Amino acid sequence: MFESNKSKQISPAVVNRLPRYYRYLSDLIKNDKFKISSKELSTLMNVTASQIRQDLNCFGGFGQQGYGYNIKQLHSEIGKILGIERNFKAVVIGAGKIGTTISKSGLFIKRGVTLKGLFDIDPHIIGSEIAGLSVMDIKNAADYCRKNKIDIVVLTLPKDETEPVANMLAETGVKGFWNFSNMELKIGNPNIKVQNIHMGDSLMLLCFDINNQ
Amino acid sequence: MFESNKSKQISPAVVNRLPRYYRYLSDLIKNDKFKISSKELSTLMNVTASQIRQDLNCFGGFGQQGYGYNIKQLHSEIGKILGIERNFKAVVIGAGKIGTTISKSGLFIKRGVTLKGLFDIDPHIIGSEIAGLSVMDIKNAADYCRKNKIDIVVLTLPKDETEPVANMLAETGVKGFWNFSNMELKIGNPNIKVQNIHMGDSLMLLCFDINNQ
Repeated sequence: MFESNKSKQISPAVVNRLPRYYRYLSDLIKNDKFKISSKELSTLMNVTASQIRQDLNCFGGFGQQGYGYNIKQLHSEIGKILGIERNFKAVVIGAGKIGTTISKSGLFIKRGVTLKGLFDIDPHIIGSEIAGLSVMDIKNAADYCRKNKIDIVVLTLPKDETEPVANMLAETGVKGFWNFSNMELKIGNPNIKVQNIHMGDSLMLLCFDINNQ
Repeated sequence: MFESNKSKQISPAVVNRLPRYYRYLSDLIKNDKFKISSKELSTLMNVTASQIRQDLNCFGGFGQQGYGYNIKQLHSEIGKILGIERNFKAVVIGAGKIGTTISKSGLFIKRGVTLKGLFDIDPHIIGSEIAGLSVMDIKNAADYCRKNKIDIVVLTLPKDETEPVANMLAETGVKGFWNFSNMELKIGNPNIKVQNIHMGDSLMLLCFDINNQ
């Protein structure tokens, strides 16, 4: 049986692999698979079977000797650890190219996150419809987050504008920032979590690998 | 002095931090700064000064006691290690929302990469102009990559279509794949490098952090 407080003891390395497990298990469910051995999962995911057994043991382990893992159960338990069931509410700040693309994608809904609103500073964009939502004025964002108990703020703003906006919204009770501004966002309140997406860094690492092979 | 073969000995952890150094140094140059001490850089980047000295020593080190680092020189040397000067040529496969957003962004040009072409399968998209380029038919992609000595292929395709297309283009002499399809791309040829961008995983890690704090 899974105990929710076990997740507190999961090492960061295992945590980083959880979304990947969740993805592969989602695909297996889509393909009507019910159970899988650590060996099969290991071939599929290109990691060793012992790594998989070790990882999945970290949060209780749902495998049975000679049977394998119950895919649906494992998927659901990893989902719980990842907070999928908490139905976090998000807003996107910045309805430019990236903000629009993310809002229209399936990124949120697939992870149990509901996109509630979009905000921009440009009067030409405010009022237009993106992903079924009418873009709101950024000056109302703090009020909106407070009243609607928003959990996650997605930042797709120019680098220089990101930190002031984030610090303003940090006061509204939001719990995390998902930051696309290619800078390390620093928030004074340590209870507010940050994930930075660095697309440019990833491209540079690819160039490094090509350059140094 | 920098020796180019030193980069071969840089540890993966340091390599992963190089794009971040490059970004901060780019910003400093933009702000007309000429030199910086490891202590200043450490405050800015939120890492310890000794970590910075250790990292930059790995590839020769350009700091002088009591003077600090020559920003332009350091920036240029890190750029060389990252292959910025090699002017890699790229194509984007899949001119949907993500492909279009990436093509229109400054992501390539800022890292010395030139976007040469875009490809799609949809006859309604083929021939349309994106980022100053006319979208080409995906069936001509392999020929194009071969003739134009393309280095980097950016994949923004549906998950299931990614691997077959990548394996076809792997035969054309390309050197790396930048994959946005949220799956771990496996290429038979170990000389071809891959960087996967997992936006969804990053969102899930944020949800995990919020859920388990």
